Amino acid sequence: MAVKWTAAFLLLQLSCCFSSGMCGKVLVWPTEYSHWINIKTILDELVQRGHEVTVLASSASILVDPSKTSAIKFEVYPTSLTKDDFEGLFVKMDSFWTHFSQVEKLTWKYSECVQKLCEDVVFNKKLMKKLQDAKFDVVLADAVSPCGELLAEILKTPLVYSLRFSPGYSFEKHSGGLPFPPSYVPVILSELSDRMTFMERVKNMIYNLTTTLLHHLHLVSFIPLVSLSGRPTTLYEMMGKAEMWLIRTYWDFEFPRPLLPNVEFVGGLHCKPAKPLGQEIEDFVQSSGENGVVVFSLGSMVSSMKEERANVIAAALAQLPQKEQVLWRFDGKKPDTLGSNTQLYKWLPQNDLLGHPKTKAFVTHGGANGIYEAIYHGVPMLGIPLFGEQADNMAHMRAKGAAVTLDFTTMSSADLLSALKMVINDPIYKENAVRLSKIHHDQPMKPLDRAVFWIEFVMRHGGAKHLRVAAHDLSWAQYHSLDVIGFLLACGAAVMFVITKCCLLCYRK
Amino acid sequence: MAVKWTAAFLLLQLSCCFSSGMCGKVLVWPTEYSHWINIKTILDELVQRGHEVTVLASSASILVDPSKTSAIKFEVYPTSLTKDDFEGLFVKMDSFWTHFSQVEKLTWKYSECVQKLCEDVVFNKKLMKKLQDAKFDVVLADAVSPCGELLAEILKTPLVYSLRFSPGYSFEKHSGGLPFPPSYVPVILSELSDRMTFMERVKNMIYNLTTTLLHHLHLVSFIPLVSLSGRPTTLYEMMGKAEMWLIRTYWDFEFPRPLLPNVEFVGGLHCKPAKPLGQEIEDFVQSSGENGVVVFSLGSMVSSMKEERANVIAAALAQLPQKEQVLWRFDGKKPDTLGSNTQLYKWLPQNDLLGHPKTKAFVTHGGANGIYEAIYHGVPMLGIPLFGEQADNMAHMRAKGAAVTLDFTTMSSADLLSALKMVINDPIYKENAVRLSKIHHDQPMKPLDRAVFWIEFVMRHGGAKHLRVAAHDLSWAQYHSLDVIGFLLACGAAVMFVITKCCLLCYRK
Repeated sequence: MAVKWTAAFLLLQLSCCFSSGMCGKVLVWPTEYSHWINIKTILDELVQRGHEVTVLASSASILVDPSKTSAIKFEVYPTSLTKDDFEGLFVKMDSFWTHFSQVEKLTWKYSECVQKLCEDVVFNKKLMKKLQDAKFDVVLADAVSPCGELLAEILKTPLVYSLRFSPGYSFEKHSGGLPFPPSYVPVILSELSDRMTFMERVKNMIYNLTTTLLHHLHLVSFIPLVSLSGRPTTLYEMMGKAEMWLIRTYWDFEFPRPLLPNVEFVGGLHCKPAKPLGQEIEDFVQSSGENGVVVFSLGSMVSSMKEERANVIAAALAQLPQKEQVLWRFDGKKPDTLGSNTQLYKWLPQNDLLGHPKTKAFVTHGGANGIYEAIYHGVPMLGIPLFGEQADNMAHMRAKGAAVTLDFTTMSSADLLSALKMVINDPIYKENAVRLSKIHHDQPMKPLDRAVFWIEFVMRHGGAKHLRVAAHDLSWAQYHSLDVIGFLLACGAAVMFVITKCCLLCYRK
Repeated sequence: MAVKWTAAFLLLQLSCCFSSGMCGKVLVWPTEYSHWINIKTILDELVQRGHEVTVLASSASILVDPSKTSAIKFEVYPTSLTKDDFEGLFVKMDSFWTHFSQVEKLTWKYSECVQKLCEDVVFNKKLMKKLQDAKFDVVLADAVSPCGELLAEILKTPLVYSLRFSPGYSFEKHSGGLPFPPSYVPVILSELSDRMTFMERVKNMIYNLTTTLLHHLHLVSFIPLVSLSGRPTTLYEMMGKAEMWLIRTYWDFEFPRPLLPNVEFVGGLHCKPAKPLGQEIEDFVQSSGENGVVVFSLGSMVSSMKEERANVIAAALAQLPQKEQVLWRFDGKKPDTLGSNTQLYKWLPQNDLLGHPKTKAFVTHGGANGIYEAIYHGVPMLGIPLFGEQADNMAHMRAKGAAVTLDFTTMSSADLLSALKMVINDPIYKENAVRLSKIHHDQPMKPLDRAVFWIEFVMRHGGAKHLRVAAHDLSWAQYHSLDVIGFLLACGAAVMFVITKCCLLCYRK
């Protein structure tokens, strides 16, 4: 029986590989948290298509859990870092400017961690020998954690990036060559939309300059990592060798902006249809009758919140006029103001709930994965951003008319109640959420299929050089044609000078 | 029986329409010659998928021949223009500068023709009433012949463009919003590649400035056409309303450059597998044995050439060392120097020949359609460009290593012979042609399917606004952030002024 199953499995593997032309070997340099959830979707698909996927995971890894998955191979290397080192990397950031200084500290700490992990791999001779011998066809790396490009260089293997965004879009801009015209592309984390007033465009220009400057400074922290390549180069130049950039966003989420032939927008990779709910939750949802339910979750990173905030929230939810039922993912002490319409859960089947026809609204902290699930199922949102890029994500949803946002620290019960009523009762939010959902579902090819296609393409052809703009070979001044403009101005000035001299000479004679 | 067939046909139509969500009505504003061949491929596919396609054809139309096609509807409108008016529009252009002045004349004449045709439609009250009543779902227009955008505006119908290129990329740049960095995107017709020396970049900058200026001047000729919209606007602004731009080129042909979410590169639409050759030609091809054949065609527009040139060519072909057989599409007097290895044909099944395993090389004038057939089948090329963009097309193929080029007017028999020997015997040309062929065939989705998907998308959703960059709402100065830069410089200067004043004041005290 076992032999039969193995044979059937092998046959399935072979047929998948044959249909795509070859069975490849993929080496993965991952990043933790939501990054991993997204990249894992790609890896599962690659494995299902018969490719061999090996993930480099440190002994301190949080979500990269070798025990959880069977089809993906894990190569666990020892590190002196601990899980706590990673957990400290996610702190609260309020506005752009406090964020600015916090990002400063954070990025340095993050760089140190990544640098350490990278050294733990590259200096691990036994591991590197094993990786060399494995002869991988492609390195798939998350661009926010440098080292993938170094491994690709050492292993002489083509590189594909997966990326949500880098601070100030620096990697995309300086390594990928993507243009970001500051007049209509708001810099990431700016909370601006693509339609800016004059002062917003001024703000965007200043943000652009400062984040680029900041990121350039941070590159200094990666000099030791880059030096491991053994040749004089920069991180930007090394990253610029990537064959493909798989950006984890799409035009349902992002404001339209210029792209390049080797950049694919594959947002919502992890999205999938809802599964039936468990009996208990289904009963609670059904008991809402015509009014429907609200799904409330501020994510896994806020396991607890101040009692006062919890009471403000509970009081607002209790006052919902149609007595809509609320499912609240909450792990703290039960608030005193909790209404009978609100049920607390330590964990919620979020995607299945968002896909349930009774769900009227989603109260979210604005993580990209949660927003993408809401887009997928066409559910309007009330955003209460907490960390990092969440406020910026919600600004996108607000600009697209599918969400209202509130400030977590200052909002009152009345604010929350009024915002929730707006999202539930004003049909425009639902209409816009459904519009975004249609955009997401109506693509020539599913995001996951596109991502997998290009990874397989790079494996089949050993790269994708035909998609690579020649801008990579130009200096900054050449790229912006400053040398050419200077030359033409100098020529013009010379001609003017000669003409003036001639005229003066004639005049004197 | 007839009823049965009709029922089956209807069922087929319905099923196709249902699978794509709806049966739509498409109005087409076409352009003649090779433009029509490409757009017709899309129309045939749309018809096959059950959509109703109506093409606006003038009574003077050349290739838009209502008698040839049955599934596509033609709405023929009377015009005072004659077929000769169109035929005169294609003249020989040698270098950029002679071309510059010729394009000048040509474009004015072309504008006049298009203007006339457009008026013949718009002022034809009966026709316009019929078009209004038909309630089309989309207008599909070739962007090189303005009027489609006017019809779309009058009929209040979303617009999709099909385009190979506009002179100086003006429409793509100023209406589509596509960025064309002059440092690595050679201007169309410049015959430059994406990897330019300093002086080539200077040349490219000058070409950019002059062609843009030229095209701006030509817009003047379209003022009467634009005024038909009855509102103060410009051609650029009207064209900018297009939902999608289907550009008829791809990265097998084009140098990689920035794109936008609503721009799809669908080059090689008309390409298809080779059919078996007729017995006579097959016998001739097979008689070449190991040496294979050369396919020689300078296109349908050169029906005759000077006797001297024909003799130069024939002499070269006769001297091919391996005595490769040559199939030459030639409609003139039989050259005296014609060798026994060369067969003359008034017409050749070009695609079927290029797809034949015996074909070693393709001698071509460099029309985009012919080049795409060679790319599709992986055949190396010898280009002898004659008209318009042919030299530029061949410059692309030369830069990609799949072709050698010669000058038609100055080449000797020795030049032609040596170039042909190079293309046939140096494996690098075949390798590069095969590489381009692989790039063409290995796309996530076929160009035709992508083109049809986006036309259907626009019909399903009444547009594709989510793919449209906000740049369309900005002025030129705003787009380039000149106002913001000016403001920031002024602020900086003001701060400097105040500081200096303060310092001076302190110093004096």
